Amino acid sequence: MSEAFDAVDVIITKRGNSELSDGQIDWVIDAYTRGAVADEQMSSLAMAILLNGMNRREIARWTSAMINSGERMDFSSLSRPTADKHSTGGVGDKITLPLAPLVAACGVAVPQLSGRGLGHTGGTLDKLESIPGWRAAMSNEQMMRQLEEVGAVICAAGDGLAPADKKLYALRDVTGTVEAIPLIASSIMSKKIAEGTGALVLDVKVGSGAFMKTVDDARELARTMVDLGTDAGVTTVAMLTNMQVPLGLTAGNALEVRESVEVLAGGGPEDVVELTLALAREMLAAAGREEVDPADALKDGRAMDAWKAMIRAQGGDPDAELPVAKETHEVLVPADGVLTELDALKIGVAAWRLGAGRARKEDPVQAGAGVVMHAKPGATVRGGERLLTLHTDTPERFERALESLEGAFTIAPEGSRPDLLPLVIEKIS
Amino acid sequence: MSEAFDAVDVIITKRGNSELSDGQIDWVIDAYTRGAVADEQMSSLAMAILLNGMNRREIARWTSAMINSGERMDFSSLSRPTADKHSTGGVGDKITLPLAPLVAACGVAVPQLSGRGLGHTGGTLDKLESIPGWRAAMSNEQMMRQLEEVGAVICAAGDGLAPADKKLYALRDVTGTVEAIPLIASSIMSKKIAEGTGALVLDVKVGSGAFMKTVDDARELARTMVDLGTDAGVTTVAMLTNMQVPLGLTAGNALEVRESVEVLAGGGPEDVVELTLALAREMLAAAGREEVDPADALKDGRAMDAWKAMIRAQGGDPDAELPVAKETHEVLVPADGVLTELDALKIGVAAWRLGAGRARKEDPVQAGAGVVMHAKPGATVRGGERLLTLHTDTPERFERALESLEGAFTIAPEGSRPDLLPLVIEKIS
Repeated sequence: MSEAFDAVDVIITKRGNSELSDGQIDWVIDAYTRGAVADEQMSSLAMAILLNGMNRREIARWTSAMINSGERMDFSSLSRPTADKHSTGGVGDKITLPLAPLVAACGVAVPQLSGRGLGHTGGTLDKLESIPGWRAAMSNEQMMRQLEEVGAVICAAGDGLAPADKKLYALRDVTGTVEAIPLIASSIMSKKIAEGTGALVLDVKVGSGAFMKTVDDARELARTMVDLGTDAGVTTVAMLTNMQVPLGLTAGNALEVRESVEVLAGGGPEDVVELTLALAREMLAAAGREEVDPADALKDGRAMDAWKAMIRAQGGDPDAELPVAKETHEVLVPADGVLTELDALKIGVAAWRLGAGRARKEDPVQAGAGVVMHAKPGATVRGGERLLTLHTDTPERFERALESLEGAFTIAPEGSRPDLLPLVIEKIS
Repeated sequence: MSEAFDAVDVIITKRGNSELSDGQIDWVIDAYTRGAVADEQMSSLAMAILLNGMNRREIARWTSAMINSGERMDFSSLSRPTADKHSTGGVGDKITLPLAPLVAACGVAVPQLSGRGLGHTGGTLDKLESIPGWRAAMSNEQMMRQLEEVGAVICAAGDGLAPADKKLYALRDVTGTVEAIPLIASSIMSKKIAEGTGALVLDVKVGSGAFMKTVDDARELARTMVDLGTDAGVTTVAMLTNMQVPLGLTAGNALEVRESVEVLAGGGPEDVVELTLALAREMLAAAGREEVDPADALKDGRAMDAWKAMIRAQGGDPDAELPVAKETHEVLVPADGVLTELDALKIGVAAWRLGAGRARKEDPVQAGAGVVMHAKPGATVRGGERLLTLHTDTPERFERALESLEGAFTIAPEGSRPDLLPLVIEKIS
């Protein structure tokens, strides 16, 4: 079969720092999806994009081409507006769990297609799968019914959504081409736009535990994604939020579900509550419901009701005991003082090595494994108190987890204060 | 099996414009050769190298690693010194054919491992294969014996020589990563150093018909290769030579053999004679025989004797009739004047399309196909005279060949002079 374009010509265009035409982009995404452009050609192009960039038109076209590689969902027949949230991934980031039922309880439907974790950041589906009976797989029809009846769905994205992205994402992972803002932005946004949400709030993490290590990089990614969403007719806002420190006091699957339920019950760690409410307000505003205060729905139990209904609708038992790891190991505070640093990346790697995460896509995860933190930066601590509790079913993992905790925290003299970014750094819309 | 390095780490190092360590280079070349680094990883690394470069140490190590991927030949037991020539490829570049026997006739052995043509530049083996009976394949033992007895061998490189380069070269061809000076230089030099020649003269072509379009690029490539050869203990010099215009009056397999034999008989086009003698002098000097004048061996027939012996030793009949194309088509001079331009690339593409070259590695070539030029830039021409004769066995090819000749020549008013680089531009040692 004769092709409209030649892969080498497309690569050489971007290699020479020229703009790709709409026709080149449409062709290369389509040809890659059907196998007429080989992996080794696409990875070479991805490296040229990483090093030479793409402009706003190119990124928008690249995103459209990935959307057009698969099916699109449509929630416009629902009786209520829809809003979705996407986080670029962090340590202890369980926000989706309390957020989706909370927003649903406020009258906005949340169709949340989520992923599994890879590396040191946890995956929402891995967390929910620690609830006995809960299932991530749903048909489009089941999803539609649950959105109408319960208002919130957290489930796995079907294979039909942006298949080009699925293939490209796996390729980038092994070819050193993950960290390209145009490719990260188009990967996230192609799925979110294809999913058909009316409004989208992006939680772009900044800090050691995030993809984006600096506010400038995070701002560029946020700006790129907000532009893509806006150009595609999705009301999109982004919040840059702190990932220098883990969110909440837990990192691990069942551990994070337990903490999320505490938040839904009106308790839970302050930062998780604050970020959940901040993102809920943005989602409600983006869906045209700025007059609703989500704090009310947390207080009066409506968010907890929506959570239980959501878990039950997907086969889970919200009242079941959650799995607990077989073994624990305590890390103690070495001396009196103030905890000024608690590094998100190192805590994330420790939780991962304890069994909460996976090294390869096909690995299983341990439901009970992870790290519990007994203090957060700013707290006054006493030598000999517990600082961290490590959980795992496989105690031979403690050693490597402890190695990754080297330098993970700093105890400074009393009166010291941590030097951290605020929890919510800025909003981009 | 556990690997000493991780492919993604190596890619990210070069992506970030850092130097690759010796260990990283040794590992990535070895792992790629045995398949532990995938094509899509190597192509992404090649693009990062193309865009971010490598320094002298990295290029030298990369070249050594490619040499170490295979066997090395050793001609040190021969009774005479060895010298080889490598051309970066051009149109009408048949110089190897008269040069190898000429240098052999002057007492220096020439072990010339050559390739087949791809695209618009011809391949030495394709040219020689138009001689009835001649065979390109030889064992190392046969090669050694012929070098001792005849003094010159032109044959195909065995599979054992720099297999890493063979694999990488094929990959670069389809991934837009051919035009990276560190990769071009290490590809050429790994084969030449592994081949075991004592001295090497590089003919680096500059102009439309060459890889390197500018003198600056050609100089950088030449400098890089001379440094690599010198560092590896091979006496290496490079000549930058003109490829704005085809060499000689023929481009095509049997056509170029015929022209080469004319040169060996003491005739032939001036530029072919001049460049053959210039390169022969450099080879003799590099091999320690600067006192010998190769012009004598052309005049007195010793070069022709060596040619016949070389062709016979590889099964060919030097006195056999060469194949002639079935059909010809004349391109006439459009008006009286001076021929000021005759574009090497366009002539090369025309010869290729007539059947002298191949589009894919597995394509056959036509022995008789090609272009004969009846004038070279600087010549006064008359309207209606023959300017070019196109040769092919398949006359349906004339149309596309004529298309590629659009703008291939310029006839200027009488008294005009061509504005061309000299045949030998400069020497780098």
